[in-house]
Amino acid sequence: MKIAQIAPLYEAVPPRLYGGTERIVAHLSDALVDLGHEVTLFSSADARTHATLVPVRDQAIRLDPAPLKSDLAAHLSMLHEVRRRADEFDVLHFHVDLLHFPLFQGQPERTLTTLHGRLDLKDLAEAYRCWPHFPLVSISDHQRRPLRFVNWRGTVYHGMPKRLYPFSPCAAGGYLAFLGRISPEKRPDRAIAIARATGLKLKIAAKVDAADRAYFHERIEPLLDDPLVEFIGEIGDADKPRFLGDAIALLFPIDWPEPFGLVMIEAMACGTPVVAWNCGSVPEVVEDGISGRVVDSLAAAIAAVDEVAGYDRQRIRATYERRFSATAMARGYEALYGQHSPGNHVRVRHSA
Amino acid sequence: MKIAQIAPLYEAVPPRLYGGTERIVAHLSDALVDLGHEVTLFSSADARTHATLVPVRDQAIRLDPAPLKSDLAAHLSMLHEVRRRADEFDVLHFHVDLLHFPLFQGQPERTLTTLHGRLDLKDLAEAYRCWPHFPLVSISDHQRRPLRFVNWRGTVYHGMPKRLYPFSPCAAGGYLAFLGRISPEKRPDRAIAIARATGLKLKIAAKVDAADRAYFHERIEPLLDDPLVEFIGEIGDADKPRFLGDAIALLFPIDWPEPFGLVMIEAMACGTPVVAWNCGSVPEVVEDGISGRVVDSLAAAIAAVDEVAGYDRQRIRATYERRFSATAMARGYEALYGQHSPGNHVRVRHSA
Repeated sequence: MKIAQIAPLYEAVPPRLYGGTERIVAHLSDALVDLGHEVTLFSSADARTHATLVPVRDQAIRLDPAPLKSDLAAHLSMLHEVRRRADEFDVLHFHVDLLHFPLFQGQPERTLTTLHGRLDLKDLAEAYRCWPHFPLVSISDHQRRPLRFVNWRGTVYHGMPKRLYPFSPCAAGGYLAFLGRISPEKRPDRAIAIARATGLKLKIAAKVDAADRAYFHERIEPLLDDPLVEFIGEIGDADKPRFLGDAIALLFPIDWPEPFGLVMIEAMACGTPVVAWNCGSVPEVVEDGISGRVVDSLAAAIAAVDEVAGYDRQRIRATYERRFSATAMARGYEALYGQHSPGNHVRVRHSA
Repeated sequence: MKIAQIAPLYEAVPPRLYGGTERIVAHLSDALVDLGHEVTLFSSADARTHATLVPVRDQAIRLDPAPLKSDLAAHLSMLHEVRRRADEFDVLHFHVDLLHFPLFQGQPERTLTTLHGRLDLKDLAEAYRCWPHFPLVSISDHQRRPLRFVNWRGTVYHGMPKRLYPFSPCAAGGYLAFLGRISPEKRPDRAIAIARATGLKLKIAAKVDAADRAYFHERIEPLLDDPLVEFIGEIGDADKPRFLGDAIALLFPIDWPEPFGLVMIEAMACGTPVVAWNCGSVPEVVEDGISGRVVDSLAAAIAAVDEVAGYDRQRIRATYERRFSATAMARGYEALYGQHSPGNHVRVRHSA
């Protein structure tokens, strides 16, 4: 099929540093190319992709040093260009929330839109009600709950290329791992409590955003003065496979409606089990008793750490490969693209 | 005429605290009602207006305590409702930058769009090139410079109701005034230098945003330890007429391309002359030699303070009434609305 992928312009595809959505668009585009599709990627010019790149901005917005820029204008220009060329594609796959709805409302069936964020925001329901015909994809079933009434076509879980996180047959580091961001909803305090109760070492690899600095200083820093706890700060993509692969388990003690939670599948790809709180996507991503444990309390988490340490890491890797590889994700989308009728093109209405 | 005013949803119309755009939409709507027009205001429900209010959100976004909200979704829902009802109006007057272009591109001639911000942002030119047929209004001629190629229909200066800033026949306070925000581009340091050189007292009524706190502490606070300089912090709307009316002159020593500069006309309404740097809209707003002096250097500003202290304050008020009253602004827009052909309605394309 001829597939257009329309990425956000905030980060490079894939991102130089953070940015979950652009990372997924990168993996999906390459995996669709591997499956034999003609993929065209609309994104900033700093993308690295096997797809045909249509660069619509010289660089991604967030790290662009220009002092004054308009993310809205940049995205509208891109969408204008996508619409101008829409007839070239069988399907237009958008990853920009709902910004494209006004431009493509004459042809919603030509589009597919993956929603990447949490949906329990004030204002969202009313806006999605205004454009009810756009086919939408969730990244977990749980993510849909605040917007049950829209035109959901399926859930496609995120996936990553198999080579990115190689299998690690044993937990050589002998520690528990916490990876991501220090913030109240990520509950690093719970991770520290688990380490203390089990007597296992905990390594925390996490960035501290400006918005979370007060929380870090007031609530977490005092807990770090413990020989069991090592705070190693932020780590890059290159260090993450080793950090996760050497761990006994990843702790994911979150307290918010996580729409997906990429770090869980990164750990599973290494063969590392996950101990995660029952929030958001967690019970969908973790196969309870196989790739980790889904828990509801500190006591259950403490018991789970002992239990998952004995899990078959090869089997966890196999679960990842089956459910969360980039190819699995691409196959999931392929099935949804197939619901579009390539012969049934509505002529695009060009702008005034 | 039947006129729809479409306001941003960030602040109430008029704002409870800051917010220039929503304030202007409030004044314009009321003044158009006074001129006999049927005005419908699309805005948040907390508006106070003589127009017919269409509340499209329960309250303005910025001060809404909801922890999670989407300003994009809120604005798109509003624009969807405006389009649904577009046939009821002779003209749709937008104040939301370019967000409405995709929804109204089938009928740009039914719309008028006032651009309220500076236009020298990366990304803007390309986006405006995508939708070249929308009739636009600038708030100063200078504001247009980065976007000379678009469909400008006129410049309409901002205006305020005459009752808001009553005339003050003499500068009872005997001080120079600086009013607004502490930030590098507002150059409060220049205001302090002028006070020191002239030996006149300076009162600084200004808020310090979080983003400007470091600048305030490092660059401005050390200069405040001077008997001539009084920093009185932020003041509300109720205190501004007295603060401006009692001043010998307003200092407006800016160093950025100000698109309009409301505080200049607030001072002029009180009869208070303005000493302002030659940036952005300044030479258009200040009538050099009548309502103030437009200067290019500290030396010129110092000389100007002496000079403007002798200006005829009644004449400054008269200049304000003629050029910058709300009625003058409404008349300006009325002339532009008249260029629309009320009989020539294109049927609105309703959303899918």
